[in-house]
Amino acid sequence: MSKVLSPQRTIDELKGLRALTGNADGAQRVAFTPEWVAARDYLRKRFEGLPVEMHDDAAGNFWATLPGESAKELLIGGHIDSVPHGGWLDGCLNTLAGVEVLRRISAQYDGRPPVTVRVVDWADEEGARFGKSLFGSSACSGNLDMDEARGLVDKDGITLPEALREVGIDFERVKDCGKELQNAAAYLELHIEQGPVLLDKGLALGAVLGTFGVERHAITFHGQAAHSGSTPMDRRKDAFFAAARMSPEIYEIAKRSGMGVCTIGSCTTKPGIVTSVVADCRITLDQRHLDATKLATMHAEAKAASERFAKEAGCTVSWERLWHIAPAPFDPDLVNFCDDAIKETCGVSHRLPSGPLHDAAEVCMAGIPTVMMFTQSLHGISHNKIEDTKEEHLAMSVEALDRLAGKTMAWIEAKS
Amino acid sequence: MSKVLSPQRTIDELKGLRALTGNADGAQRVAFTPEWVAARDYLRKRFEGLPVEMHDDAAGNFWATLPGESAKELLIGGHIDSVPHGGWLDGCLNTLAGVEVLRRISAQYDGRPPVTVRVVDWADEEGARFGKSLFGSSACSGNLDMDEARGLVDKDGITLPEALREVGIDFERVKDCGKELQNAAAYLELHIEQGPVLLDKGLALGAVLGTFGVERHAITFHGQAAHSGSTPMDRRKDAFFAAARMSPEIYEIAKRSGMGVCTIGSCTTKPGIVTSVVADCRITLDQRHLDATKLATMHAEAKAASERFAKEAGCTVSWERLWHIAPAPFDPDLVNFCDDAIKETCGVSHRLPSGPLHDAAEVCMAGIPTVMMFTQSLHGISHNKIEDTKEEHLAMSVEALDRLAGKTMAWIEAKS
Repeated sequence: MSKVLSPQRTIDELKGLRALTGNADGAQRVAFTPEWVAARDYLRKRFEGLPVEMHDDAAGNFWATLPGESAKELLIGGHIDSVPHGGWLDGCLNTLAGVEVLRRISAQYDGRPPVTVRVVDWADEEGARFGKSLFGSSACSGNLDMDEARGLVDKDGITLPEALREVGIDFERVKDCGKELQNAAAYLELHIEQGPVLLDKGLALGAVLGTFGVERHAITFHGQAAHSGSTPMDRRKDAFFAAARMSPEIYEIAKRSGMGVCTIGSCTTKPGIVTSVVADCRITLDQRHLDATKLATMHAEAKAASERFAKEAGCTVSWERLWHIAPAPFDPDLVNFCDDAIKETCGVSHRLPSGPLHDAAEVCMAGIPTVMMFTQSLHGISHNKIEDTKEEHLAMSVEALDRLAGKTMAWIEAKS
Repeated sequence: MSKVLSPQRTIDELKGLRALTGNADGAQRVAFTPEWVAARDYLRKRFEGLPVEMHDDAAGNFWATLPGESAKELLIGGHIDSVPHGGWLDGCLNTLAGVEVLRRISAQYDGRPPVTVRVVDWADEEGARFGKSLFGSSACSGNLDMDEARGLVDKDGITLPEALREVGIDFERVKDCGKELQNAAAYLELHIEQGPVLLDKGLALGAVLGTFGVERHAITFHGQAAHSGSTPMDRRKDAFFAAARMSPEIYEIAKRSGMGVCTIGSCTTKPGIVTSVVADCRITLDQRHLDATKLATMHAEAKAASERFAKEAGCTVSWERLWHIAPAPFDPDLVNFCDDAIKETCGVSHRLPSGPLHDAAEVCMAGIPTVMMFTQSLHGISHNKIEDTKEEHLAMSVEALDRLAGKTMAWIEAKS
């Protein structure tokens, strides 16, 4: 077993996985499907010949453990599942790079590193079938809402508990997997960026500051239907006019917040006919920030603006919260290590937040020091068969993850 | 037969018609239904005892003619049909007030006025069943698009020609009714306002300057879907942002136009999900003005603004014309007579354009000198069972229409 890391081997293994479980429409590793089972088998085979213990936990997460001198654990995590017709790297880059890093560590320490090293492959990160992401990691962190999850139904009317039973998982016991985290000292996750930030900056890698908190609301403006021909402009209670003014406003709110983002993703109008002023206009607003206080400010500013615009249009406005999650800022020491590892690998690093959620957010919220590393996405796109990353960037990402693992092991050892 | 006009009789007859053809949900005089046939019979009975000739023309329009010394005709027109669950006065005020005015003229001149006086009840003004308004009057004016009308289908799959055949009308011959206009010298139409202008001003009656021309378009902005969390604000091609900026802009365009109105009546977004920037946003824009040049300017300004907003949002924009009709400015002499008649009746008049279309627009476009008179609508609303007008205003409207008829007869006589 070579003591030298081989990023090329990871690239070759990623391609092997793609050949095994993808097709012309992209990656098809949807959780709990035969393709996913094949991907899991492929992952297990990567550990052959290594002194690791492997098992699936109560929620279907896969763990490969290389025991060390200390029971304290370095976790390297990812997810091999994909959305239907997804990208070839989303999720599995993390798990296969983790295998290579574990191999290098095992070889360096003759199978007995100073701290325990584990690779985890989370079950159903994407939530493609039941519309609920982070299933395995939220079961492990304890954040999974059992009542909500129990009622989830796929498009064929099959419930999540029924689907889990078919793959040998007892839904009512999934949170038992929480014990897997009891010795966890740090969690690392490498992922493709899924956005255009590193692409725009021409950088290969970035250190992730944390995952955004999200405030997600439906906002409905209530005005009055009126004939488009007979109603003078100054007599209108135009709900679309009030709602439309929110769009430029959220750009200003996001700008003031520093690094937050705000999105109006949908707009519906009633009665919605060409000859009537809009009586009711519903928009959805998704706001994200890494800082909880700033997220709250963004939310408050949007609310105040909506009330002002409603009043000025002779309308009223009502808000309904659709979803909310707190920001998960990553561990400052680990973010520094990540930054250093990137600089040592390719000279320049960049710190950025993660807009999308990741399993890392669940681990972080469970109190485990966590950091993520992003590698550039071509086209700045994901969840699409055209998702891709340059091979040289993939190679650098494996190398930087390995350096980060080394720094983190030393940090765990020093703290013990 | 009294030589004194009785506006109260018109009010009583309107109530009689309501009792006969309305219910708790409003007026139900939808064209070509049994209720409409009953309303027509009720109208015919109003002429009993008067020396009038009555017939239905090739398009189902009803004509009652009081022959005069001159073959030149004064037409007083309206429509007894309503939308389903409509208002009690919309359309039938005109026809029943016309009956009373004809009665007064007949009595004054012992059945032989100096010019011929006709009351016309247009067929299917509302277009409630086939979605095509002004059927009878556009057949008469010659503007009816036969190819388009031939293909119209109601919600039960019945074509317009089939429905007409059931009431004894041969669709292919409807334009034969154009001959009814060959001696027409002037056309008067009294109507409820259907908007809030007179209500706001506290006025009973107004002289109508003409019906607005309409430019009706669908505008689609094309941007790019992008993840709401991972896409920085300055990297977005947000089609909703571009479309939303049109809303305040059309208020400015309408203001600059003087008396025009602009309405964005609907907005749809694609993919229209909370976690994505909007890729495609389609809005409908309805623009109306009495002046053709100003209408063209409003349209050009909206188009230029949409192109600017699209460019600034990194989007493109495409326009599709849904409908168009030229403005129909009424006859200046008749507008003056209308204004005078109103002032003599209630002291104050007001000149205003009509946003909604009326049969008067068709007659006007056929080259007949035309004017309309509006009476105040409570709530500024129509096409609704709550549509209403104060009885004192109804009485004044009949009186003012009578004065206008007198002035117009004298004008026709003087021109002959």
